[in-house]
Amino acid sequence: MATYRAPVDDMMFLFEKLRDNSHYNSLEKYKEVNPDLAKDILEQAAKLTENLILPLAKSGDEKPAKLENGVVRTPPGYKEAYKKFIEDGWVSLSCDPEYGGQGMPKTISSFFDEMLSAASLSFKLYSELSIGAYNCIHRHGDDSIKKKFLPNMVKGTWSGTMCLTEPVCGTDLGLLKTKAVEQSDGTYKVTGQKIFITSGDQDLTENIIHLVLARTPDAPSGTKGISLFLVPKVQVKEDGALGSRNGVSTNSIESKMGIRGSATCVLNFDNAVGHMIGPKNKGLSSMFTMMNLERIVVGLQGLGLSEIAYQNALNYSKERKQGKSNSSKTKNGADLIIDHADIRRSLLNMKSIIEGERALSFWLAQQTEVSLHHKDDKIKEEALDFVSLMTPVVKSLFSDMGMEITSEAMQIFGGYGYTKDQGIEQLYRDNRITPIYEGTNSVQAIDLVFRKLVNKDKDIIGRYVKLIETEIKKNKNQKNIKPLADKLDKYLKLTVDFTNWIKDKMKNSKDDVSAACNDYLKVLGLIALAYSWLKVLDVSYKELSKNKKFFEDKIKTANFFFNRVLPRIDSHYKSAISGSKYIMDFKFN
Amino acid sequence: MATYRAPVDDMMFLFEKLRDNSHYNSLEKYKEVNPDLAKDILEQAAKLTENLILPLAKSGDEKPAKLENGVVRTPPGYKEAYKKFIEDGWVSLSCDPEYGGQGMPKTISSFFDEMLSAASLSFKLYSELSIGAYNCIHRHGDDSIKKKFLPNMVKGTWSGTMCLTEPVCGTDLGLLKTKAVEQSDGTYKVTGQKIFITSGDQDLTENIIHLVLARTPDAPSGTKGISLFLVPKVQVKEDGALGSRNGVSTNSIESKMGIRGSATCVLNFDNAVGHMIGPKNKGLSSMFTMMNLERIVVGLQGLGLSEIAYQNALNYSKERKQGKSNSSKTKNGADLIIDHADIRRSLLNMKSIIEGERALSFWLAQQTEVSLHHKDDKIKEEALDFVSLMTPVVKSLFSDMGMEITSEAMQIFGGYGYTKDQGIEQLYRDNRITPIYEGTNSVQAIDLVFRKLVNKDKDIIGRYVKLIETEIKKNKNQKNIKPLADKLDKYLKLTVDFTNWIKDKMKNSKDDVSAACNDYLKVLGLIALAYSWLKVLDVSYKELSKNKKFFEDKIKTANFFFNRVLPRIDSHYKSAISGSKYIMDFKFN
Repeated sequence: MATYRAPVDDMMFLFEKLRDNSHYNSLEKYKEVNPDLAKDILEQAAKLTENLILPLAKSGDEKPAKLENGVVRTPPGYKEAYKKFIEDGWVSLSCDPEYGGQGMPKTISSFFDEMLSAASLSFKLYSELSIGAYNCIHRHGDDSIKKKFLPNMVKGTWSGTMCLTEPVCGTDLGLLKTKAVEQSDGTYKVTGQKIFITSGDQDLTENIIHLVLARTPDAPSGTKGISLFLVPKVQVKEDGALGSRNGVSTNSIESKMGIRGSATCVLNFDNAVGHMIGPKNKGLSSMFTMMNLERIVVGLQGLGLSEIAYQNALNYSKERKQGKSNSSKTKNGADLIIDHADIRRSLLNMKSIIEGERALSFWLAQQTEVSLHHKDDKIKEEALDFVSLMTPVVKSLFSDMGMEITSEAMQIFGGYGYTKDQGIEQLYRDNRITPIYEGTNSVQAIDLVFRKLVNKDKDIIGRYVKLIETEIKKNKNQKNIKPLADKLDKYLKLTVDFTNWIKDKMKNSKDDVSAACNDYLKVLGLIALAYSWLKVLDVSYKELSKNKKFFEDKIKTANFFFNRVLPRIDSHYKSAISGSKYIMDFKFN
Repeated sequence: MATYRAPVDDMMFLFEKLRDNSHYNSLEKYKEVNPDLAKDILEQAAKLTENLILPLAKSGDEKPAKLENGVVRTPPGYKEAYKKFIEDGWVSLSCDPEYGGQGMPKTISSFFDEMLSAASLSFKLYSELSIGAYNCIHRHGDDSIKKKFLPNMVKGTWSGTMCLTEPVCGTDLGLLKTKAVEQSDGTYKVTGQKIFITSGDQDLTENIIHLVLARTPDAPSGTKGISLFLVPKVQVKEDGALGSRNGVSTNSIESKMGIRGSATCVLNFDNAVGHMIGPKNKGLSSMFTMMNLERIVVGLQGLGLSEIAYQNALNYSKERKQGKSNSSKTKNGADLIIDHADIRRSLLNMKSIIEGERALSFWLAQQTEVSLHHKDDKIKEEALDFVSLMTPVVKSLFSDMGMEITSEAMQIFGGYGYTKDQGIEQLYRDNRITPIYEGTNSVQAIDLVFRKLVNKDKDIIGRYVKLIETEIKKNKNQKNIKPLADKLDKYLKLTVDFTNWIKDKMKNSKDDVSAACNDYLKVLGLIALAYSWLKVLDVSYKELSKNKKFFEDKIKTANFFFNRVLPRIDSHYKSAISGSKYIMDFKFN
């Protein structure tokens, strides 16, 4: 079985040294969330994930969730763990105190998301979508709905889902067919089939609150006629007590490559009673509140699985002897594989990506909080713009890198990595969903380029580039950092060229843009990681004497990133700007 | 379930138009193997793999090989299929007619290897190692051994294995501990444990001929004290009849991520009677005869799995509608996903790699035959040099690309690709062994750079570069091809720089080389694919009018390769030449 130690030190480093957003630091709401409190929470979270959650990964993989007589049974141990999980208040970590939550910022809860993903993504998914549904109801529901449903969701005795996909539509929700017919009492009767519903049913909670996209009979076609409905599995009476079963049933659950402990359901809604959330025909935009936050969490899933894969590969490389290193001192016998340059290269590749990602997501968590809670609307909007720019990047980059890193970890284990015993191949299978769900990574790239890059009134990417330029300028005076800052400078200029190329092609050659968007996303992602590393370098040199080993490691890891990872940009750029004529002309038989 | 059509047209194109090796064409042995015969065999092979073998993939995955009371049971349907498979003579395709084989060259049998891998890699493995063992015995065994064992192996009623790995050694065979003690009758008693033995036991054949690496008591330590032994599962009497069971038993079988239909065994040898093959203490080099050919076959496995993944992704993209393409004409509703530029890009990425690989492996098959059968020793050796240079490249490149391509196919299927129903995720899991077994891809890179690149008396890479230069020169006069030939020229020069950098660092900074070898292998692989595409382009323009659609497709696909895939070289090169100081200095906690 894979082992796991939550990287609390690195998280605390970020929390103490890289809370660099003055708007975030001025938020009244989080004044009391100081490093001591953060450390206390992260240490408790570490204990929980390392001890209680980690063993659930294997049990969920070996004894997947199953459907028995119409009821989903979670894997052995899940029920007991979930009970403890909610008793200790972990579901409510980031929720509003008004509904019983602990009101912690994303600067902390996103670390917890990473830890949970590392320990058992399948288990995590049972509460993750609840938080998504909570966010959506909290933002768009009216007061009576919030009072009726949120307290139990925050407690974790009720859970939530997101019901979007149907057999004919995943990416393209405009095609959806589920119907919602208004009743005389103002409720709706919802009828249709939803597929790929994560935690669509389970035996962990007393009720499940489904958020369902559907059309009213008079709705316009396409995405402009979609409304959002709250449909509980068990109806809830006026006094909040549970009533009779609603018209929601589980048709089947998917047999999947990974996250086998998580029940992915086909749900049938048959005249199920629902409540409309938010304005009519605006359901898609309400759902996207939740969806966007969820996409960032998917990125964190990739990060968590990368971290545990790295840790296990590192440990194994310090135990396994094989072959002689170039500077071997052994006469007969072999050296530890960690002494081999190629294995070290692979480990540093993982480490430099993981720590860059963690720093980037910490920056994004600050921006997200500002976008949600700052009192100045302009500042709020500016932060939201950065969040919207980085959401597809973090989702895709971290999930793709998760594949690279879990795969590299398997390679280090050799044949042992391919067997079930070590738990390594499971990390790889579990992570393989992350480039797919919540919008495939190609959909993210299209979102980035067609919606975030080109904006009528604002130049979000231009502002983001400026941020990085400022950081580069600041660091060019430090002789240790200068060579790396110069490198980023060069690649940033190339990224600006690439951006201009895209904006130009957007006018008359949209296919060129579509065929380039995946490469563009990767380039921007690498730039964002390098930007994060530059800030880490700045702190590391300044604080070097205070924690020598820690900061020396950071400096060397940053060096690796700039020398070995960042140059991937060259190939992406060259390949992308070759256009699409020969692609569009091709006649696939 | 995944569907499959063997790409006979592309294979026949290569067989008819790219048998460009005059030494191969002059081999007396294969004079009669003309296009008509080739086509006949390939069409029969297509029928076999599409109808009989393909269904075994799913059954093997769902009902893996299992160990029952010490006996391995293959998945449902394997026995019946294997019976038909050997009755129709497929095991013997490339074997020596002297022992009952059909004597077909690798220019044909490697196509068959690809087809079988595509249809069911697990099923293929039951005969694949037999051919490996056959090759080894055929080359190194003495006549009496050959007469006693080969005919039944060629018939397929007996199978063979390669027993190298032990718990403490995979890559580093110098550490192996299995003992072989000579008996008064000249046989040996072999004792030890071997792990990861593909088809180590099964219920398909009457006997299994294990080729086992072991040490005699007086052997020197390390790799210089390893001998090779033939150890049958059931002893064979002088007259060839089966005798009593030998001291070989199956301790356990592995539960694996993929190729679950293939039994990967832990074998215990307990005073098992064995016969020494080849000279004492030279077992490793005898085994490597087999190993090297086997490594190329692993590359073909990656190619086969890539092809079937591509076919299924292509078919799905012509059925699934989602979103509007940039030039959409639909009003309500969605376009086929094949109309989206990004999906087309992904499909052409797969196609351009697959067809380049097939052409490269066809070239390598010709070289291999020349290296084995040409009457001129010098020509033989020159061909062998190319084979030895390209073996690690083909093994690693095709298996890595297999991961890329099966993964891209999954992305095209979206959520459906992650479920078991479509059979796509299985291709991905099955292929994931190919970068690991027969020497991990890192071991291949080390082999390439430390053994093949730097050679005392000869400059193999220099000769290979010359071959490509000649092809470039030839094509620079053709105005249609010139831009692509120029591109290859530029990247070839960069590859020469990279090679010189490696040779220079080899003197005093071996860690720089070790940390660069994976990138070097990828660069050389991309160059080799581009070289193959250049030859295909040449033919395609010349023959355009004869088969317009076919050759136009080739030309466009080649364009894709040169514009979108070849530029990956830039990043590999830049990253690799950054050295290794910061890698070797790093202190992993």
